[in-house]
Amino acid sequence: MDSLQALKDRLAPIVDVQRVARLLSWDLQTVMPPAGAQHRAEQLGTLQQLAHERLTDAETGRLLEAAEREVDGLDPDSDDVTLVRLVRRDYDKAVRVPSELRAEMARAAAEARPVWVRAKEASDFAAFLPALEHNVDLRLRYIECFEGVDEPYDILLDDFEPQTSTAEVRALFDELKGALVPLIAELRDGDTDDSFLTGSFPPDRQERLAKGVVDLFGMRPGSWRLDPTVHPFASGAGVDDVRITTSYDPATIKSLFSTMHEYGHGLYNHQLPRDLERLPTGGPCSLGIHESQSRLWENLVGRSVPFWRFFYPRVRETYPEQLGDVDLDRFLAAINKVKPSLIRIKADEVTYGMHVILRFELEQDIVNGRVALTDLPEAWNAKMSEYLGVEVPDDAHGVLQDTHWSGGMIGYFPTYLLGTVMSVQIWQKAAEDLPELEDAVGRGEFAPLRDWLGEHVHRLGRKFSPQETLRRATGSEIDAKPYLAYLESKYRAGVAA
Amino acid sequence: MDSLQALKDRLAPIVDVQRVARLLSWDLQTVMPPAGAQHRAEQLGTLQQLAHERLTDAETGRLLEAAEREVDGLDPDSDDVTLVRLVRRDYDKAVRVPSELRAEMARAAAEARPVWVRAKEASDFAAFLPALEHNVDLRLRYIECFEGVDEPYDILLDDFEPQTSTAEVRALFDELKGALVPLIAELRDGDTDDSFLTGSFPPDRQERLAKGVVDLFGMRPGSWRLDPTVHPFASGAGVDDVRITTSYDPATIKSLFSTMHEYGHGLYNHQLPRDLERLPTGGPCSLGIHESQSRLWENLVGRSVPFWRFFYPRVRETYPEQLGDVDLDRFLAAINKVKPSLIRIKADEVTYGMHVILRFELEQDIVNGRVALTDLPEAWNAKMSEYLGVEVPDDAHGVLQDTHWSGGMIGYFPTYLLGTVMSVQIWQKAAEDLPELEDAVGRGEFAPLRDWLGEHVHRLGRKFSPQETLRRATGSEIDAKPYLAYLESKYRAGVAA
Repeated sequence: MDSLQALKDRLAPIVDVQRVARLLSWDLQTVMPPAGAQHRAEQLGTLQQLAHERLTDAETGRLLEAAEREVDGLDPDSDDVTLVRLVRRDYDKAVRVPSELRAEMARAAAEARPVWVRAKEASDFAAFLPALEHNVDLRLRYIECFEGVDEPYDILLDDFEPQTSTAEVRALFDELKGALVPLIAELRDGDTDDSFLTGSFPPDRQERLAKGVVDLFGMRPGSWRLDPTVHPFASGAGVDDVRITTSYDPATIKSLFSTMHEYGHGLYNHQLPRDLERLPTGGPCSLGIHESQSRLWENLVGRSVPFWRFFYPRVRETYPEQLGDVDLDRFLAAINKVKPSLIRIKADEVTYGMHVILRFELEQDIVNGRVALTDLPEAWNAKMSEYLGVEVPDDAHGVLQDTHWSGGMIGYFPTYLLGTVMSVQIWQKAAEDLPELEDAVGRGEFAPLRDWLGEHVHRLGRKFSPQETLRRATGSEIDAKPYLAYLESKYRAGVAA
Repeated sequence: MDSLQALKDRLAPIVDVQRVARLLSWDLQTVMPPAGAQHRAEQLGTLQQLAHERLTDAETGRLLEAAEREVDGLDPDSDDVTLVRLVRRDYDKAVRVPSELRAEMARAAAEARPVWVRAKEASDFAAFLPALEHNVDLRLRYIECFEGVDEPYDILLDDFEPQTSTAEVRALFDELKGALVPLIAELRDGDTDDSFLTGSFPPDRQERLAKGVVDLFGMRPGSWRLDPTVHPFASGAGVDDVRITTSYDPATIKSLFSTMHEYGHGLYNHQLPRDLERLPTGGPCSLGIHESQSRLWENLVGRSVPFWRFFYPRVRETYPEQLGDVDLDRFLAAINKVKPSLIRIKADEVTYGMHVILRFELEQDIVNGRVALTDLPEAWNAKMSEYLGVEVPDDAHGVLQDTHWSGGMIGYFPTYLLGTVMSVQIWQKAAEDLPELEDAVGRGEFAPLRDWLGEHVHRLGRKFSPQETLRRATGSEIDAKPYLAYLESKYRAGVAA
């Protein structure tokens, strides 16, 4: 197995460089002096270029062919065979894309980010348009590197959710849309009082509570940190260096939920297989699987009755002025209130999906040239009105709200809803395997859930496709029905302790 | 000039990677979750390996030869000729060292650091010894890659202070030693009261003051940050991303001086030539020149009468309990008190040099096999007694105090004293060119000094050798006499406003 070992040695630095790039991106969004943006763009471009050059080098191709011969006939599920299979996939994709284009995409993304931040602050889409055009143009050039696909969007989607076609996603989303639109119409005019969730929530107390949640859910001490940023995300440099971020809005309690969400991402990174750590198979499977983890902790744990029976007293004590005379049932009803709104990351569980479907549809229109970028705000606003019945007052609350397109990340959004759908399938399988799960959550004990996720999802790393990973974890293919049934039973019945 | 341009394009990613490595090292020492140390060691090793592979690649050699032909006959001081000359030097050195050894040196250094931190905390040299042995062994293997040098230590010194021989440094240091030992003996028993410099200095006030000093000395807004760490240092990712660190000891005022010191390093990084930014010539010249900048701001500005006439009221207001009844003259005398002590970074200006000379001598003994590493504490303590007349109570206050050897950085220490000597030569030349310099400092105006340093020192980057850089800035070779004359006139006369 000499060639296989040589291939692994050749790949390890690529994995390191990709992790370093993630750390630089964390730094950019949390602690970097703002003037450093231009350096950072160059540095991220260079790392992308070096990783890409090394992966697409003739020597990698030679070692890969030799390794394929070496592992021929071995157990197809083994670490070595899955590695060689994955590297073949990555290699065949990568060699089609010139290093210069890869580097330019990374640079353009890093350069566009501050432009987007300023444009969003000023709610000025026109100021963002040139950066968006440049990034979209690079994506179209990227698509041109490939041939023989059913539709161009498949290429972009594959970078975030591998081996998943636009057609499959469209079918799933159409099923969801058919059920969500009437459900939203039915629930939207509820008169649940959630006024106490807006008011004064001092950021220092929010931070203490957020760190308390991460401590409670659990990660090994000394292996994580939590920092404030504008747009929350999770990152890190390895299983023992997990970085999650959140955003403390002094007027709301939302950081609690965004922290639980990012904790789910962080735990996935934390429990990836240590023995595959410097191999491509040791990374996370896909953004959809990643999101299934964050949504599971945010919603299936973090908006559930058992969790709040345990945790509400602590939150109430933290904000006595706001919540002193709010009992658990009123709190539960408020945090689960269904109300169509403008901002995806603040959306409730029921309306959330339509925010994603809107973006998925617009992205296909962009890639297929069915919408001009200048007309994007108008197209956005029309769909918001149609799907959620809300009118967009300005672009900061509309088309400029998310950072993704500033980074050229087209094809990313659908993974949010794929993950949300899968989160329910994974939760239900965990609950089936662990009959005590709800009781444990109600006692504030999360080790059983952490361990189950570690064993059935996280430790698979990137060995298999997202759908194969889901099948191994749950025994099922991706399916809208459990998710829709969960929403209907939870929200039609009303939530109470 | 096609080959020259291709060479520049080939080198730019190396410069980027080196800057990224510096940023990772900053992260390691300021914000990284402690469990992340192993990942970080691998990542730093990989970056070192990638940069080294790219520099020593046959293609670089081919472009370098072609570029040498292209620039033949051009102005030897031009950006292009100095670049080609420098790259030839770097390349010829680098090709002698296998990439694996380079990577192993970086990994071993990163792995040793937490070992050193724990050993220092426990004052347990034996716990540090294996890591030290491994790092020293790698350094000896590194030396073996070279041939035809006068003495082995030259190889190590050249990595920190290029084109400077051990013999030259020894001659300079012997001259200093001859003058410092009697000067210290004469001044050591002064009865200056500095008791008020120990007591209660709340870290939040120290931090406010430290940031105030950086603001006052001046850097472009949004291009720097100041963070706490154990062992202060300056780092950064480019001229617009400067990171300085300091350490807030609640019992002393020392962070003020360490901040001024690190500001000097930071300003140098901040004013390096922007037009050479992604070229090897765009970096700092040497650690000696770097240290001349930090020592200039720490001592020539930061322990001077004019500066404190301006700044003392602010410090006194910050710590009224400690300094309320201490007048400027008493304060100036205290911060300039000569008293042999155990810790280099806390040493006064007069005794500082002997701390460095001790290390320089021990390092040569290590490299030449004249001292076994197990005997290092004993050898250290004997020299402390001989040169400074102080007895070392434990290894934490002796051989374990500095981080350098944990990172295998042998040959680094002498640059501290080289820089200190040069700082006086540079200051005196600045004062000659700027007759108003002392008055400006006394008014809290630092732009003239910043600009002078930028024009005469910083903008030269790494175009020339350290000694050539000094000659261009001051018109003189390195010389112990101005430094000794400065110490004698300042300290024999006593310091007063």
